[in-house]
Amino acid sequence: MGARSGGQALSHQVTGAVPGRSAYPLYDEAALGLPNFWHPVAFSRRIGRKPRAVEVCGETVVLVRSEDGRVYGLLDRCPHRGIPLSMGRREFPGTLTCVYHGWTYDLATGRLLAALTDGPDSPICRSRGVAVRTFPVEERAGLVWVYPAEGEAPPIGPHVPPEFEAEDGVLAGRITEQVGDWRHAAEAGFDEGHAKYLHRRTLWKLFRFLPAWSSIEVQRSEDGRWLSRRVTRRVYQDDYPDVGRWPRRKPFWKVLEGEGKKSAARVSIRLPGVLRVDFRGPVLGNYTAWEFWVPTRLGRYRYLQFLTAQGGLPKRAMVRSWYWGYMRWGYHVRFNDQDTEVIRNMRTPPERLYRPDQSIVEWRRMCEEALAH
Amino acid sequence: MGARSGGQALSHQVTGAVPGRSAYPLYDEAALGLPNFWHPVAFSRRIGRKPRAVEVCGETVVLVRSEDGRVYGLLDRCPHRGIPLSMGRREFPGTLTCVYHGWTYDLATGRLLAALTDGPDSPICRSRGVAVRTFPVEERAGLVWVYPAEGEAPPIGPHVPPEFEAEDGVLAGRITEQVGDWRHAAEAGFDEGHAKYLHRRTLWKLFRFLPAWSSIEVQRSEDGRWLSRRVTRRVYQDDYPDVGRWPRRKPFWKVLEGEGKKSAARVSIRLPGVLRVDFRGPVLGNYTAWEFWVPTRLGRYRYLQFLTAQGGLPKRAMVRSWYWGYMRWGYHVRFNDQDTEVIRNMRTPPERLYRPDQSIVEWRRMCEEALAH
Amino acid sequence: MGARSGGQALSHQVTGAVPGRSAYPLYDEAALGLPNFWHPVAFSRRIGRKPRAVEVCGETVVLVRSEDGRVYGLLDRCPHRGIPLSMGRREFPGTLTCVYHGWTYDLATGRLLAALTDGPDSPICRSRGVAVRTFPVEERAGLVWVYPAEGEAPPIGPHVPPEFEAEDGVLAGRITEQVGDWRHAAEAGFDEGHAKYLHRRTLWKLFRFLPAWSSIEVQRSEDGRWLSRRVTRRVYQDDYPDVGRWPRRKPFWKVLEGEGKKSAARVSIRLPGVLRVDFRGPVLGNYTAWEFWVPTRLGRYRYLQFLTAQGGLPKRAMVRSWYWGYMRWGYHVRFNDQDTEVIRNMRTPPERLYRPDQSIVEWRRMCEEALAH
Repeated sequence: MGARSGGQALSHQVTGAVPGRSAYPLYDEAALGLPNFWHPVAFSRRIGRKPRAVEVCGETVVLVRSEDGRVYGLLDRCPHRGIPLSMGRREFPGTLTCVYHGWTYDLATGRLLAALTDGPDSPICRSRGVAVRTFPVEERAGLVWVYPAEGEAPPIGPHVPPEFEAEDGVLAGRITEQVGDWRHAAEAGFDEGHAKYLHRRTLWKLFRFLPAWSSIEVQRSEDGRWLSRRVTRRVYQDDYPDVGRWPRRKPFWKVLEGEGKKSAARVSIRLPGVLRVDFRGPVLGNYTAWEFWVPTRLGRYRYLQFLTAQGGLPKRAMVRSWYWGYMRWGYHVRFNDQDTEVIRNMRTPPERLYRPDQSIVEWRRMCEEALAH
Repeated sequence: MGARSGGQALSHQVTGAVPGRSAYPLYDEAALGLPNFWHPVAFSRRIGRKPRAVEVCGETVVLVRSEDGRVYGLLDRCPHRGIPLSMGRREFPGTLTCVYHGWTYDLATGRLLAALTDGPDSPICRSRGVAVRTFPVEERAGLVWVYPAEGEAPPIGPHVPPEFEAEDGVLAGRITEQVGDWRHAAEAGFDEGHAKYLHRRTLWKLFRFLPAWSSIEVQRSEDGRWLSRRVTRRVYQDDYPDVGRWPRRKPFWKVLEGEGKKSAARVSIRLPGVLRVDFRGPVLGNYTAWEFWVPTRLGRYRYLQFLTAQGGLPKRAMVRSWYWGYMRWGYHVRFNDQDTEVIRNMRTPPERLYRPDQSIVEWRRMCEEALAH
Repeated sequence: MGARSGGQALSHQVTGAVPGRSAYPLYDEAALGLPNFWHPVAFSRRIGRKPRAVEVCGETVVLVRSEDGRVYGLLDRCPHRGIPLSMGRREFPGTLTCVYHGWTYDLATGRLLAALTDGPDSPICRSRGVAVRTFPVEERAGLVWVYPAEGEAPPIGPHVPPEFEAEDGVLAGRITEQVGDWRHAAEAGFDEGHAKYLHRRTLWKLFRFLPAWSSIEVQRSEDGRWLSRRVTRRVYQDDYPDVGRWPRRKPFWKVLEGEGKKSAARVSIRLPGVLRVDFRGPVLGNYTAWEFWVPTRLGRYRYLQFLTAQGGLPKRAMVRSWYWGYMRWGYHVRFNDQDTEVIRNMRTPPERLYRPDQSIVEWRRMCEEALAH
């Protein structure tokens, strides 16, 4: 696969009149995401003995932790009378019992083991024909992951970033439910263009002077799983024919982002909607911000934001204090809320793409390929 | 008609794959209930000179009490410009006047008697062609009853339980508006199966040990109007092949419900959605709990809960204190809220019935017969 | 055009069985109003440097005040990615910049002048093909007016009442957003019939005794722009065949409205939904109440209420104190809220008109004529 510059090849799409999504019919249909991937849905510590319903790719899944410590997932609907199983109780080890009539399901297989209120010889159990759908669930890196598609789940390994499980690593983060289309959110994440305007004045960039504009190259990783943006040119101030110089001046306390040691972050995205932003800070050293957009139901998505860093005990302690003392509030809340507010108010199609949207176009193409298989 | 056991005859429906409602097409359509019955809608004391709108079986009816003390019901919409008549005033005896232009309707006939703002010779009145639909309304037992169907109403007598009007009787109760399908509510009311699981731990059953399961026989009364459940066998604890013993133990302070003097309540249902539960308490003696589910609009119903008891002055005083001191809170609010919460969250069809659902099946059959006439 | 009495000619429509709106098909369709008129949308003082979105006739327009003091209006949607431009900033004089990627539009022409984050040579700008729709906007009389139709706007002059700009004039008022159909509101405004019943007991009429009924003549002004109601006969109390005398008595402190010096107000209406009520008070002298109903989106309208009066400094001071001390609360809030509450609850069609509705019928006819051109 290797690297390729999308600039030339994509120009007709990026500047066309109403290119829109018609070039990506499967992506256009994927309002509920790519279910045949593993999706993180909750912090492990939030899933205990009490059943909890989560939505993922249009499915509602009841999660419950069994006596053996494992988390299981069932479709959140009792076949008997349509009651959410998340209203039920863990009456016996390894089972979940519907609150209404005591229908009791095996957590591992979903099979109906007993209809308590009909006695041990209940015909509905003897027939062995009743089961509730199960979902593959895994716990990795302090998170619960669900595979919402039908069929056998692939190994979860490649779906969990190794940084999430590094022995000398820190992982901290935030999970919220948002209004908007997960695709708008993913596109905003990998979008090269908007940060330089939308985020120019946020606290997080207080000491950074963002370019006015830049040229980028979109590259695919060797293994084909990641798209990355590489900036090939940065212009910090420029003269625009109709409006004049912009930005008008550089505050003296700001340093040019992307120049010298204070290089810009490197941004990469992969399926089914995972962003990594690699930072290199003067004090903290390397660390990475992660974002997952997990569609829940039409027009809603779950937004998972994480920080990972590796290093010795002192660095890890420093990263943790910095995250809880500043980054969570300054970046995960304030900075990214500028994005979520925009996403919530986006009304497309129609749309009219411009040159920097080549990053979006490449992302759509990658999704389209995956959906075609 | 007489008694019959549904157990054998109904087994194919109760355990079939997706028997569902297709066997009861008219019942399936009856989302707004059975309008050709008298339905209680409000406490009499709540209907006074001020017009009040109530919904029943999809109709909105304005109720107003006239000078003669009678309550009348009109369709809550002025034919002139579509204003709710419940915004109007009682300007003249025996009439209701629309708030907007003073169109004045006879409460008894619905006929337009005057269009005040057009003078005594208003052509719209002289034509005598304008009237608003009236609904038969009766007051019985401290309640206002409405007949929401077209055509002549049948005598209300058989629709009012005699216990509601007994000379030596007590009547107390509660009327609330609920979210959910009235059929789910009625089926939950007559359902044999769920109490033993859903209600097992509620305060109301603090001193009663419910059976794990039971066998029932559904009987129709001599006059064909009531269906009753009769328990033919009770098993308080049992061993289930896949999950083990349930309930695991009987708390020492609980007595077996349905054994000896502390017999279980007898539960009966009749059209259009009326449940009676006959209790026999050690102290209070006999008393009856009543429930009415009156559909209001799609997906909503009015829930009327009553207690009746008969006896001398001392018993009546005791029953009243017990109702207001305990039963209202412990049974009408806490116990029955377990039901209303389940009903609100029910998502059917599809459904998959089991053996104890023969009570529901018989109820559906009774409705289907009534709707076919 | 001149004066004409609608009483005779319109009688078949006014008393017909279900005449309804089928006689006015274009008016029936005009749920979003008459866009090819100038509509007032906000007080001038509320539109400043910060962009503000207003809805008018189904369009959402972002209003912003430029450096030259003028207010401009653009369609509130960036063609790029569908973000509301009202979230944007005024980055350069005479422009509005989208908050997301810095697309910068000329306020006067709507043309895309720069896509900041794509540099001065951005192809999307060089093509000069991108523009956002502009709306004609004028400021007159302390109000911002928008012309929401396509095509060239007519001169605003005749759309602004001269009283709003009189040199010796007072203008005070209130703008609110309401639920309901603008046509119901306009019809309620020009409706002869309802005041005598709906408003009979409001504080504003504390010292006035309204007629029971009256005969009216609807006249069109010489220039054909205004419809006015003229009362030809007033009856203050009368005997109605089926209900008796009404009103039963005249409180001693009330004077007959419309008799002697305390003459009734004169009510006129013009397109696209403007009412003027000319009062003559014993102390204040002449003053005029104005109402505008501007449809915003389906089932909503903006309600603009004004008072104008002309005179020397003392009169203007008196009128102002009287407005802020009493009329605003007694008339604009209390009196007119009786109307808005009725309008909010109106459910038509169907409808059944009566004789006084000839005013409504004439208004519909005037709208129908205008819409047919």
